[in-house]
Amino acid sequence: MPILRLEMHPGRTQDQKRAFVREATRAAVETLVCPPESVEIIITEISKESWATAGKLKSDS
Amino acid sequence: MPILRLEMHPGRTQDQKRAFVREATRAAVETLVCPPESVEIIITEISKESWATAGKLKSDS
Amino acid sequence: MPILRLEMHPGRTQDQKRAFVREATRAAVETLVCPPESVEIIITEISKESWATAGKLKSDS
Amino acid sequence: MPILRLEMHPGRTQDQKRAFVREATRAAVETLVCPPESVEIIITEISKESWATAGKLKSDS
Amino acid sequence: MPILRLEMHPGRTQDQKRAFVREATRAAVETLVCPPESVEIIITEISKESWATAGKLKSDS
Amino acid sequence: MPILRLEMHPGRTQDQKRAFVREATRAAVETLVCPPESVEIIITEISKESWATAGKLKSDS
Repeated sequence: MPILRLEMHPGRTQDQKRAFVREATRAAVETLVCPPESVEIIITEISKESWATAGKLKSDS
Repeated sequence: MPILRLEMHPGRTQDQKRAFVREATRAAVETLVCPPESVEIIITEISKESWATAGKLKSDS
Repeated sequence: MPILRLEMHPGRTQDQKRAFVREATRAAVETLVCPPESVEIIITEISKESWATAGKLKSDS
Repeated sequence: MPILRLEMHPGRTQDQKRAFVREATRAAVETLVCPPESVEIIITEISKESWATAGKLKSDS
Repeated sequence: MPILRLEMHPGRTQDQKRAFVREATRAAVETLVCPPESVEIIITEISKESWATAGKLKSDS
Repeated sequence: MPILRLEMHPGRTQDQKRAFVREATRAAVETLVCPPESVEIIITEISKESWATAGKLKSDS
């Protein structure tokens, strides 16, 4: 039942995503005490053209 | 004013999306008692490479 | 696997929410062709003090 | 620390996004009283095939 | 049609929210070229007990 | 820069949230290769009256 969403820049390999969902699920299972099957993770990649900090797109920094 | 978001895997046809927004809007209008024009729906497709259950990407299952 | 989110103003009864999740799940199952058990719905209530249209909070309209 | 998300149809130029994040950050800094570096903005583009109002996809209207 | 979401800590006055939605809507209208009536803004307050940076809840920092 | 969101039922202690954000941040840092300070986590609690599976609110199951 916990749903986790990750937003990050593109550029990670499929292996990194694989490792992330494994480790983040383990973190949820151990700390929140829930079965692994109940943990859903959705990854969204946001390009630097669409993410800004301090009023500036990251593609411009 | 109700905003509905649907996250699902890609693969549905445009006709299925068309039917979904029609039927989901009807469900909202009838049960929540609001005018159809007030119902917004946003559909986001999440690939199996970016969605995990039980610590495993769906593309790996 | 489809995840649906509904944002709306508070004020609906628990029975209306009950009817909404039943009907919206039916809409998803029929149009997207997925098992009912795979449909998750999360409802979030947003007060009129926190929702604006046209630059005006709804509590001020 | 404020996080702003913008969902809109595709079609705006990179210059328009640049102007939006600059002006929206200024609005946040001035009205919420926070340092510019603390304001993050994420822009997501939603095609007309995936956005519906009144039960109709915008690509069908 | 643009939908803006703001997540921030609680503590701002209703007047600050009022000013934010007015100014953020103006920013959207001017830079994205859309009618004011099409801009929706939803504000969500996230307590310091539920927001973390660098692995630490802000209420612990 | 990675932003993580966790949605779950209420009922976890502040210590469990503390442990979750510590471990989930570690998972992100190690697998996605990013500095800990860049990882933000937002936790949202969704009551069983507002979360449904298979067309049924969890408070009714």
